Amino acid sequence: MEIDVTISLKKGVADPEGANTKKALNLLGFDDVVDVKSMKTFRIEMDIEDEKKARAEVEEMCKKLLANPVIQNYTIEIR
Amino acid sequence: MEIDVTISLKKGVADPEGANTKKALNLLGFDDVVDVKSMKTFRIEMDIEDEKKARAEVEEMCKKLLANPVIQNYTIEIR
Repeated sequence: MEIDVTISLKKGVADPEGANTKKALNLLGFDDVVDVKSMKTFRIEMDIEDEKKARAEVEEMCKKLLANPVIQNYTIEIR
Repeated sequence: MEIDVTISLKKGVADPEGANTKKALNLLGFDDVVDVKSMKTFRIEMDIEDEKKARAEVEEMCKKLLANPVIQNYTIEIR
Protein backbone atom coordinates (compact mmCIF):
# COMPACT_ATOMS: atom_id res chain seq x y z
CA MET A 1 0.00 0.00 0.00
CA GLU A 2 1.31 3.43 -0.91
CA ILE A 3 0.59 6.36 1.36
CA ASP A 4 1.43 10.00 0.76
CA VAL A 5 2.24 12.16 3.76
CA THR A 6 2.29 15.85 2.94
CA ILE A 7 3.95 18.15 5.44
CA SER A 8 3.01 21.81 5.18
CA LEU A 9 3.82 24.83 7.30
CA LYS A 10 1.20 26.09 9.74
CA LYS A 11 -0.48 29.41 9.12
CA GLY A 12 1.71 32.28 10.24
CA VAL A 13 4.98 30.39 9.81
CA ALA A 14 7.27 32.09 7.30
CA ASP A 15 7.75 30.22 4.02
CA PRO A 16 10.66 31.95 2.26
CA GLU A 17 11.01 29.15 -0.30
CA GLY A 18 7.39 29.56 -1.35
CA ALA A 19 7.61 33.35 -1.34
CA ASN A 20 10.75 33.36 -3.50
CA THR A 21 9.30 30.81 -5.90
CA LYS A 22 6.26 33.05 -6.32
CA LYS A 23 8.52 36.04 -6.97
CA ALA A 24 10.59 34.11 -9.51
CA LEU A 25 7.47 32.89 -11.34
CA ASN A 26 6.09 36.43 -11.51
CA LEU A 27 9.43 37.67 -12.85
CA LEU A 28 9.32 34.95 -15.53
CA GLY A 29 6.00 36.41 -16.70
CA PHE A 30 3.57 34.13 -14.89
CA ASP A 31 1.45 37.01 -13.66
CA ASP A 32 -1.51 34.83 -12.65
CA VAL A 33 0.44 33.32 -9.76
CA VAL A 34 -0.96 34.77 -6.55
CA ASP A 35 0.69 32.54 -3.96
CA VAL A 36 3.05 29.61 -3.70
CA LYS A 37 3.36 27.33 -0.69
CA SER A 38 6.27 24.92 -0.41
CA MET A 39 5.54 21.54 1.11
CA LYS A 40 7.28 18.23 1.63
CA THR A 41 5.84 14.87 0.64
CA PHE A 42 6.89 11.42 1.76
CA ARG A 43 5.58 8.52 -0.32
CA ILE A 44 5.60 5.59 2.06
CA GLU A 45 5.25 2.04 0.79
CA MET A 46 3.93 -0.27 3.49
CA ASP A 47 3.58 -4.02 3.59
CA ILE A 48 0.12 -3.88 5.13
CA GLU A 49 -3.39 -4.55 3.84
CA ASP A 50 -5.72 -2.96 6.39
CA GLU A 51 -6.29 0.66 5.36
CA LYS A 52 -7.41 1.78 8.80
CA LYS A 53 -4.39 0.25 10.49
CA ALA A 54 -2.05 1.76 7.91
CA ARG A 55 -3.52 5.21 8.48
CA ALA A 56 -3.14 4.87 12.25
CA GLU A 57 0.49 3.79 11.88
CA VAL A 58 1.33 6.66 9.54
CA GLU A 59 -0.32 9.09 11.97
CA GLU A 60 2.06 7.72 14.61
CA MET A 61 5.03 8.17 12.25
CA CYS A 62 4.12 11.81 11.69
CA LYS A 63 3.95 12.45 15.42
CA LYS A 64 7.18 10.61 16.18
CA LEU A 65 9.39 11.58 13.26
CA LEU A 66 8.06 13.15 10.10
CA ALA A 67 6.42 16.37 11.26
CA ASN A 68 7.20 19.05 13.80
CA PRO A 69 3.84 19.84 15.43
CA VAL A 70 4.99 23.28 16.53
CA ILE A 71 5.26 24.64 13.01
CA GLN A 72 3.93 21.93 10.67
CA ASN A 73 0.67 20.31 9.67
CA TYR A 74 0.41 16.97 7.94
CA THR A 75 -2.15 15.27 5.73
CA ILE A 76 -2.27 11.53 5.08
CA GLU A 77 -3.59 10.21 1.79
CA ILE A 78 -3.92 6.55 0.86
CA ARG A 79 -3.15 6.21 -2.86
CA MET B 1 -7.57 27.95 -8.54
CA GLU B 2 -5.15 25.88 -6.50
CA ILE B 3 -2.74 23.56 -8.26
CA ASP B 4 -0.35 21.08 -6.67
CA VAL B 5 2.92 20.41 -8.43
CA THR B 6 4.74 17.40 -7.03
CA ILE B 7 8.39 17.01 -7.93
CA SER B 8 9.83 13.54 -7.52
CA LEU B 9 13.20 12.03 -8.40
CA LYS B 10 13.48 9.93 -11.55
CA LYS B 11 14.07 6.20 -11.24
CA GLY B 12 17.73 5.46 -10.60
CA VAL B 13 18.46 8.80 -8.97
CA ALA B 14 19.70 8.39 -5.40
CA ASP B 15 17.27 9.55 -2.71
CA PRO B 16 19.28 9.61 0.55
CA GLU B 17 16.58 11.54 2.40
CA GLY B 18 14.00 8.89 1.58
CA ALA B 19 16.40 6.04 2.38
CA ASN B 20 17.34 7.53 5.75
CA THR B 21 13.71 8.23 6.62
CA LYS B 22 12.91 4.60 5.89
CA LYS B 23 15.81 3.48 8.09
CA ALA B 24 14.70 5.75 10.93
CA LEU B 25 11.09 4.53 10.72
CA ASN B 26 12.25 0.91 10.81
CA LEU B 27 14.44 1.67 13.83
CA LEU B 28 11.44 3.26 15.55
CA GLY B 29 9.62 -0.05 15.18
CA PHE B 30 7.59 0.60 12.02
CA ASP B 31 8.60 -2.70 10.43
CA ASP B 32 5.90 -2.56 7.73
CA VAL B 33 7.66 0.31 5.97
CA VAL B 34 9.22 -1.09 2.80
CA ASP B 35 10.23 2.09 1.01
CA VAL B 36 10.11 5.86 1.44
CA LYS B 37 10.45 8.37 -1.37
CA SER B 38 11.00 12.04 -0.60
CA MET B 39 9.27 14.53 -2.85
CA LYS B 40 8.67 18.25 -3.05
CA THR B 41 5.27 19.85 -3.51
CA PHE B 42 4.45 23.41 -4.57
CA ARG B 43 0.88 24.50 -3.96
CA ILE B 44 0.33 27.26 -6.50
CA GLU B 45 -2.63 29.60 -6.26
CA MET B 46 -3.49 31.11 -9.61
CA ASP B 47 -5.90 33.85 -10.57
CA ILE B 48 -7.24 31.98 -13.57
CA GLU B 49 -10.52 30.20 -14.34
CA ASP B 50 -9.78 28.00 -17.33
CA GLU B 51 -8.49 24.64 -16.10
CA LYS B 52 -6.85 23.70 -19.37
CA LYS B 53 -5.02 27.01 -19.60
CA ALA B 54 -3.90 26.75 -15.97
CA ARG B 55 -2.51 23.29 -16.53
CA ALA B 56 -0.59 24.44 -19.61
CA GLU B 57 0.87 27.38 -17.71
CA VAL B 58 1.95 25.22 -14.79
CA GLU B 59 3.55 22.77 -17.23
CA GLU B 60 5.55 25.72 -18.55
CA MET B 61 6.54 26.72 -14.99
CA CYS B 62 7.85 23.22 -14.31
CA LYS B 63 9.96 23.28 -17.45
CA LYS B 64 11.29 26.78 -16.84
CA LEU B 65 11.82 26.82 -13.07
CA LEU B 66 10.35 24.22 -10.76
CA ALA B 67 11.78 20.93 -11.98
CA ASN B 68 15.11 19.74 -13.28
CA PRO B 69 14.25 17.45 -16.20
CA VAL B 70 17.57 15.61 -15.95
CA ILE B 71 16.81 14.07 -12.57
CA GLN B 72 13.21 14.99 -11.72
CA ASN B 73 9.67 14.13 -12.77
CA TYR B 74 6.67 16.30 -12.02
CA THR B 75 2.95 15.73 -11.72
CA ILE B 76 0.33 18.46 -11.90
CA GLU B 77 -2.91 18.13 -10.00
CA ILE B 78 -5.75 20.64 -10.02
CA ARG B 79 -7.31 20.72 -6.57
